[in-house]
Amino acid sequence: MPVKLAAPDLLALHPVKGVRLGVARAGIRKKDRKDLLVVELSEHSQVAAVFTRNRFCAAPVAVAKEHLGSGTIRALLVNTGCANAGTGQDGIDRAIQCCELLGKNMGLDPHSILPFSTGVIMEPLPVDRVAFAIPECLGALFEDGWLDAAEAIMTTDTIPKAVSRKLDIDGHTVTITGIAKGSGMIRPDMATMLGFMATDAALPADLLRSMTTYASDRSFNSITVDGDTSTNDSFVLVATGQSSLPVVESSDSPVFKLLLEAVTELCVLLAQALVRDGEGATKFIEVTVQGGRNETECRKVAYAIAHSPLVKTAFFASDPNLGRILAAIGNSGISDLEVNRISLFLDDVLVATGGGRAPGYLEEDGQRVMKKEEITVRVSLDRGASSASIWTCDLSHQYVSINADYRS
Amino acid sequence: MPVKLAAPDLLALHPVKGVRLGVARAGIRKKDRKDLLVVELSEHSQVAAVFTRNRFCAAPVAVAKEHLGSGTIRALLVNTGCANAGTGQDGIDRAIQCCELLGKNMGLDPHSILPFSTGVIMEPLPVDRVAFAIPECLGALFEDGWLDAAEAIMTTDTIPKAVSRKLDIDGHTVTITGIAKGSGMIRPDMATMLGFMATDAALPADLLRSMTTYASDRSFNSITVDGDTSTNDSFVLVATGQSSLPVVESSDSPVFKLLLEAVTELCVLLAQALVRDGEGATKFIEVTVQGGRNETECRKVAYAIAHSPLVKTAFFASDPNLGRILAAIGNSGISDLEVNRISLFLDDVLVATGGGRAPGYLEEDGQRVMKKEEITVRVSLDRGASSASIWTCDLSHQYVSINADYRS
Repeated sequence: MPVKLAAPDLLALHPVKGVRLGVARAGIRKKDRKDLLVVELSEHSQVAAVFTRNRFCAAPVAVAKEHLGSGTIRALLVNTGCANAGTGQDGIDRAIQCCELLGKNMGLDPHSILPFSTGVIMEPLPVDRVAFAIPECLGALFEDGWLDAAEAIMTTDTIPKAVSRKLDIDGHTVTITGIAKGSGMIRPDMATMLGFMATDAALPADLLRSMTTYASDRSFNSITVDGDTSTNDSFVLVATGQSSLPVVESSDSPVFKLLLEAVTELCVLLAQALVRDGEGATKFIEVTVQGGRNETECRKVAYAIAHSPLVKTAFFASDPNLGRILAAIGNSGISDLEVNRISLFLDDVLVATGGGRAPGYLEEDGQRVMKKEEITVRVSLDRGASSASIWTCDLSHQYVSINADYRS
Repeated sequence: MPVKLAAPDLLALHPVKGVRLGVARAGIRKKDRKDLLVVELSEHSQVAAVFTRNRFCAAPVAVAKEHLGSGTIRALLVNTGCANAGTGQDGIDRAIQCCELLGKNMGLDPHSILPFSTGVIMEPLPVDRVAFAIPECLGALFEDGWLDAAEAIMTTDTIPKAVSRKLDIDGHTVTITGIAKGSGMIRPDMATMLGFMATDAALPADLLRSMTTYASDRSFNSITVDGDTSTNDSFVLVATGQSSLPVVESSDSPVFKLLLEAVTELCVLLAQALVRDGEGATKFIEVTVQGGRNETECRKVAYAIAHSPLVKTAFFASDPNLGRILAAIGNSGISDLEVNRISLFLDDVLVATGGGRAPGYLEEDGQRVMKKEEITVRVSLDRGASSASIWTCDLSHQYVSINADYRS
């Protein structure tokens, strides 16, 4: 059961002018489920993307990176059921074939198409089924296809994830809508994280790229379930320029900042949705580290806490076994960390200070917080002005069950 | 149930001249269990040690480091039940008090005593109970107390761990005996890894130090269960010089190499015993990475595999879901890794090569290996002559149960 997460309401997902989405049932891994998605982008759309840093990156990631570098992008082709990863040159060939097939059907240069795949690793992508289903996708292209699209990219997700917002900027209405699937770094084989977001604002390529990096660093790159980074992780941001808002010229303009803030907020909501629907998750945990010398060391400490299986099992058990958090902080790889300056809070409860248990700390106060479904762990390093927040979930029996059993 | 590991045979644990061990039931956390150990070392013993790199290192670690730097060491004082970690200045004071108490009882300078603790974090060490039980330890000092000692330092270990060997070197008999507890990095609070080993060979301080580092790097620092490093991890190597073998003068001498090899082998056996008795372990897994440019990158790849919860749950399920291993390799943080050169073997079965599934690989061959209790994962990076091996176990339901439930 996802932690405080409901399926999105179709009516709350606003169409983005210049974007049409069509899905089909290609039978790539399972029959009778939506598993193929085509996203058509209007001419002059700008597209930026960030990809997995896993060296075993999947064939579609390699192809998408190359196509993105070659110029105009007019369509995205996404399948679930097969990751087309760990497939060598044959996988590259199949990803390219899929782009050629879609290009032929749409009258587009294959290089203007970005392919994405998610599903099981080391299985060949069934190109014939993709070919067969492409016309069905194209026959069903709609501006309000976002919820269908969110469903068509799911793997072991229990709920589709989508967000949307309308902004009024200087009297112009700007729309931003996005979808995502997977649980971030939790599911490298059946589960890749994929995210697609579009706005009808007009943004030059360089501004769109910096917006993509900024927003993904603070959202999709700030979540973890088990520390594994998928071979296929991708996030794409599209700006169609179809709204009446004039082109955003500079990253210093107030309009850019408004858009950046909105895109980042929506990305954070999607990223948090992935964690809330994390495999076996029963708790949603924010880890905030303050008072660091720089953001890097704050993130190191936050990830050391969020990756510790002992911390995660303590959350699952609602056990205020807080020495585990101190041990994780000490284990974060910062060689000159002054542990005597560190304070640790669970929500509003001061747990540890000066290198040990806080004088006024009572176990029942820790217990009260640990029983909640949403918990904030706050660490103060007391040696600088930087901070960082990441999101994670607990480690439950169901996590082991899902990952030990799902292929069988 | 530990994986292929039996309790040591008392008769196979040879006494080391110059070392006497005494245990007592101090009631530190539980009544009626051996929980306090004194190890008495003869005059002129050399002592070297390596300690946790966790910045939240425990009070006894801080004190032991200081005492070790100050010169002669004549005794070790070890308790289980309380880690005396995350306890600030008060914890330091208590560790020093314990050394003073033992020093008074033995007529020794407190600085010649090294304290060690293992157990729950963030609880104060009950110095009064230690004080009360010290005379009992001293009244029970025996040369053949090694098995009792191995039992007295256990926490959630299901079996005591001890190893021993006699060497004949140039007609002189040299003995090496050692004990350990915990499961390496698996159990930072109730579980710290502690290891103590002694030989009656005579080794100068600098040679003993280099032997300690060499052996521990290849044993205790080459195991992982869940990637957590304890606040209290310590390994101590003692050379009493009580055998008839002349003092070892140089690290180039054949005698030094014989001793180094034997000490390292025994450390590896102890380290492997910790993994075999790892929390919830049902499989014992060796990860060997060959053909690396240097040992560091081989270890990075090996640890990326050994730390991946998805790889570990696949082993638990005996599921040859080998894409998970490829994804973990790609995720090891080596930016110029050439995935097309990598080969992956499960025992003798070639699974992947050239960036994808090996042409001749059959799932039933992978399945056959995955069902075994002991499995070797072998990765060839094909870009150099270095290699490294580490040992780990799987991630089971019981791991979650033990760590979610044990405090309650």
